[in-house]
Amino acid sequence: MIQEGARVILVGEGREYYVRAGKGTLSTDLGTLDLTVLIGASPGDEVATHIGKTFRVRTPRAIDYFAHASRSGAPMLPKDIGTVIAYTGMNRSDDVLDAGTGSGIAAIYFGGIARSVRTYEVRAEFARQAAKNIEDAGLGNVQVVAGDVLEAAGTYDVVHLDMQIGEAHIAHAHALLRPGGFLACYTPFIEQMTQAMDAASRLYAEVHTYEMQEREMTRSARGTRPATRVGHSGYITIARR
Amino acid sequence: MIQEGARVILVGEGREYYVRAGKGTLSTDLGTLDLTVLIGASPGDEVATHIGKTFRVRTPRAIDYFAHASRSGAPMLPKDIGTVIAYTGMNRSDDVLDAGTGSGIAAIYFGGIARSVRTYEVRAEFARQAAKNIEDAGLGNVQVVAGDVLEAAGTYDVVHLDMQIGEAHIAHAHALLRPGGFLACYTPFIEQMTQAMDAASRLYAEVHTYEMQEREMTRSARGTRPATRVGHSGYITIARR
Amino acid sequence: MIQEGARVILVGEGREYYVRAGKGTLSTDLGTLDLTVLIGASPGDEVATHIGKTFRVRTPRAIDYFAHASRSGAPMLPKDIGTVIAYTGMNRSDDVLDAGTGSGIAAIYFGGIARSVRTYEVRAEFARQAAKNIEDAGLGNVQVVAGDVLEAAGTYDVVHLDMQIGEAHIAHAHALLRPGGFLACYTPFIEQMTQAMDAASRLYAEVHTYEMQEREMTRSARGTRPATRVGHSGYITIARR
Amino acid sequence: MIQEGARVILVGEGREYYVRAGKGTLSTDLGTLDLTVLIGASPGDEVATHIGKTFRVRTPRAIDYFAHASRSGAPMLPKDIGTVIAYTGMNRSDDVLDAGTGSGIAAIYFGGIARSVRTYEVRAEFARQAAKNIEDAGLGNVQVVAGDVLEAAGTYDVVHLDMQIGEAHIAHAHALLRPGGFLACYTPFIEQMTQAMDAASRLYAEVHTYEMQEREMTRSARGTRPATRVGHSGYITIARR
Repeated sequence: MIQEGARVILVGEGREYYVRAGKGTLSTDLGTLDLTVLIGASPGDEVATHIGKTFRVRTPRAIDYFAHASRSGAPMLPKDIGTVIAYTGMNRSDDVLDAGTGSGIAAIYFGGIARSVRTYEVRAEFARQAAKNIEDAGLGNVQVVAGDVLEAAGTYDVVHLDMQIGEAHIAHAHALLRPGGFLACYTPFIEQMTQAMDAASRLYAEVHTYEMQEREMTRSARGTRPATRVGHSGYITIARR
Repeated sequence: MIQEGARVILVGEGREYYVRAGKGTLSTDLGTLDLTVLIGASPGDEVATHIGKTFRVRTPRAIDYFAHASRSGAPMLPKDIGTVIAYTGMNRSDDVLDAGTGSGIAAIYFGGIARSVRTYEVRAEFARQAAKNIEDAGLGNVQVVAGDVLEAAGTYDVVHLDMQIGEAHIAHAHALLRPGGFLACYTPFIEQMTQAMDAASRLYAEVHTYEMQEREMTRSARGTRPATRVGHSGYITIARR
Repeated sequence: MIQEGARVILVGEGREYYVRAGKGTLSTDLGTLDLTVLIGASPGDEVATHIGKTFRVRTPRAIDYFAHASRSGAPMLPKDIGTVIAYTGMNRSDDVLDAGTGSGIAAIYFGGIARSVRTYEVRAEFARQAAKNIEDAGLGNVQVVAGDVLEAAGTYDVVHLDMQIGEAHIAHAHALLRPGGFLACYTPFIEQMTQAMDAASRLYAEVHTYEMQEREMTRSARGTRPATRVGHSGYITIARR
Repeated sequence: MIQEGARVILVGEGREYYVRAGKGTLSTDLGTLDLTVLIGASPGDEVATHIGKTFRVRTPRAIDYFAHASRSGAPMLPKDIGTVIAYTGMNRSDDVLDAGTGSGIAAIYFGGIARSVRTYEVRAEFARQAAKNIEDAGLGNVQVVAGDVLEAAGTYDVVHLDMQIGEAHIAHAHALLRPGGFLACYTPFIEQMTQAMDAASRLYAEVHTYEMQEREMTRSARGTRPATRVGHSGYITIARR
C-alpha cells in the first residue's frame, strides 16, 4: 500500500508520469489528477483524471529511477550496471563502496541488492540530489557521503568507481576489499581504461576489461532488424582481490 | 568461517580449484592438499600443499559458480544474466520465477539477490544437478522444481524464461506477474526472438528486445585492442506487465 | 584539367561545396565565387571568393558522390558497397548487373571499377536522377535502364541487388552469371535476408551473409573512444554460381 | 580459355582445390586428376578424377587469392580491404602506393581495380612470395619492391599502409599524394591507431578512423543467428590530402 510522500509511476495512453503520492496535482493533456488519491493505492490500481482518462499505478523499480530520477549528468546505462552486478556477483550479503555517485542511479541499483552501500560524491550539490533520489527509492541501506572516496574506511565486497580514477583510488580499493572481493571501474575513454587496467594489474590477481555493445532489436510491419542507434558508453574493468 | 562441506575456491600460481572443505585430497601438479584444513579457514587464508606451494582460500560468489559448477549444457553468460537483472531492476524484495533451470547458474545469481526464487526444469536429471549446485551456493531461498513451468502458481515480480518459449508460457507469466513486474525471455535464435516479441506484444504494455555484444579488451606489450573472439549468445526480450 | 560542365568539389574553412564548372555563382557566407574560373583549373588549385577567402579545387571521387550527389532515398553506405566489392572481388574485367539503382551511388562505385555496369531501376524518376548523377561522375560505361531487372539479358560476373528481392530475381541472376560469378543481395530487414539466403541456397554453391557494424573512432582532448552512434544498415548475402 | 601455368580453382563435393594448369597431378580422396586437362578449359567446365568424380573449373578472383594464395602472415581481411576501397573511392584511373605487401593480397585486390600499384615490402622473402602470388593473379600492373616505402617516388591517388607506421610514413605519403588523394592506414592496435590519427591530423585536412565488426549470419534447421565468432582485426584511418 502506497504511503504519503512515496514515489509513484502512472502509466497509460502511451504516457508515463513520475509523481509523489500526496498533496499536489498532476496536469496532463488528458486532464488533471489529484495526487492524494494515490495514498493507500496499490500497484495495478487505476486512477482517473477529471475527464475520466485512466492511468495505472506502479511502484517504481530501479529501472524506473534510471528513467525518471533527477539527473546531475549522464548516469551509467542499465547494460553497464548489469555488467558490474554480474561480473562481481553482487548479492544481499555484500557491503558495497561506490564512488562518483552522480545522480545515484547505480547506488539505487546496488542498494536494492546489497546489504549496505556507501557512496562518495565530491560535488556537494550532486551528493544532495543523489541523496534525494535514493530517499525516493526508499533505500535505508545506502549512505551518501559528500566527500573523497580516498577517505573511505571499512571493508567491502565490491568497490565500484565511476569517476576520474587514479592509481591511488585503485590502491585504496584494494586496501578496503575483502579477499575475493571485486573492484569495478567504469571509464568512458580508452586512455582511462588502459590506466585502470595497468594500475589494477599491479595489485590485483585477475583483471578483465569489457565493453558491452547493446543493440535493441526492432520489429514492425516492415520487418525485424537491429535499431540504427547507440554504440559506445564506456569500458568496465573488473579486478579481483 | 568455512564449514565442513562448504564449497571453496583455491587460487594461486595461475591456477584455480573448486573444492569442498572436509575429507578428501586435492591433487595438483604442485603437490597434494588435505581438504580438512579448509574447515574453519577464512577467505584470504593461505593453505600449503605437501611440497609447500600455497593457495589462497576464497568463498565462491555467483561468478564462481558460473565458472566451476557442474554443467548440464551451456549456461547463460554473465553479460546476459546482468542484462536481465538490470532491465528488470531485480532486488531483495522480489519473488522470482525462473524456468529452464539448466545448471542453475541464473537461479544462483537470482537467489543471491531476490527474496525467493522458484525455478522449473522439465528434465529431471538437470533439475537434480541444478539443485546440487544451488545447495553448494548455500541458497535456502531457491527451490528447484522438476516439472513444467506452466504448472507454477503464485505471484512474482520477475519471470525469467530460458527454454523453448511458447505463447502459453508468455501468457502464463502474465497471469503470475504482479502489476509492474517483468518477464525476461532469453532466446538464442532470431525466430524464437520474434515469436517472443509478438506473443509478449499482445499481452504486455512495454516490450523491448536487446542483444549484448560483449568485447573483452586485451592489453599486452604489443598494445591494446579488443579480443578477437565471441559474438553472439542470445536475445533478451523484456516485457512489463 | 577541369572541363566546362564538370563537377568540382571546393573545400576550405571547414566547408565543402559540390559545384559545376561553368556559368553560375556560388554564394557562401565567405563571399561569392564565379564558377567559370573553375574551367581549366586543376585539382589542388586555389580559387578565391570576392572577399578573398580561398577554397581548394578537388575533382570528385566515388566517396564524394556518396556525400553530395542528389538522392532519391538513402543510398547504400560505403561500408556495405566496400563489402560487396571485396567479397565479389570486383575488378576491371567485370561486367556488372545492378538493380535498385536508387540514386546511383553503388553504380558509380562499380562503374569506376568494372568494365561495364548495367543498372535497373523501376521508378522512372529515380532512374532519371541516377542517370544524371552517373553522368556527373563521367562514367561512360554505366547504363541506367528504367525497367525491371527480370528483363535484363547478357552475361555478368557480378549481379548486385538492392531492392525488394524475390526468388525470381535470385534465379534470374543465376541464369545471367558466368561460372564463378557472384550475386550480392542487400537487405535491410532480417526477413528479407533469410528469404534471400534460402532462395540462394537452393541454386548457388556457396552462400554467406554478412553484417558490417561500422564504428567510427573519435579522438579529442578528453580522450579516444568509439563514436556513440550508428549500428545497423543491412545484411549482405553473397552467393557464388 | 585457360593457359598453361595459370591458376585454377577446382570445386565440387564440398571441396575446393587451388591448382595450376599444366604438368602435374592433383591427388584427392576422390581420385587423382591430370592437371594438363585444364589447359584450354573454360570456367564452368567439368573435369573428372580417375574414379569419375567431377570438379568444376573456376578462374580465380581476388577473393580466391585471399583464400588460397601462399601466406607470409595474416593478410588483411576482405572486410578491411573493402573499407579501404570504399572510403578512398579507388578506381581504374588510380595510381596506388601500397606498403607492407605481406602476402600481396591487398595488392592483388588493388591491382584488379587501379591503373597501377606499386607495393613495398622490406622483408625480401615476403616480397618474393608476394610477387609470385601477384604473378599468379595475372596482374601486370602491380610492381613489388623489396624495400622501404620511404624511398618511393612518384605521385599517387591512394597510399595504403599496412605496416609499422611512423610519422615519417604519413608525411611521405602526403608528399606523394595528388590533391584530393587518400591515405589509408591499417593498424591492429589502439596505440598505433591513435599515433596514425595524430600524425595524419597534423598534415591532412580530413581524418577519420573506422573499425568494421563483421558478423556472419548463420541459418540452419534450428534457426537463424549471428555466428559466435570473430570480432576485431584492426582500425582503418582514412586521411585526405
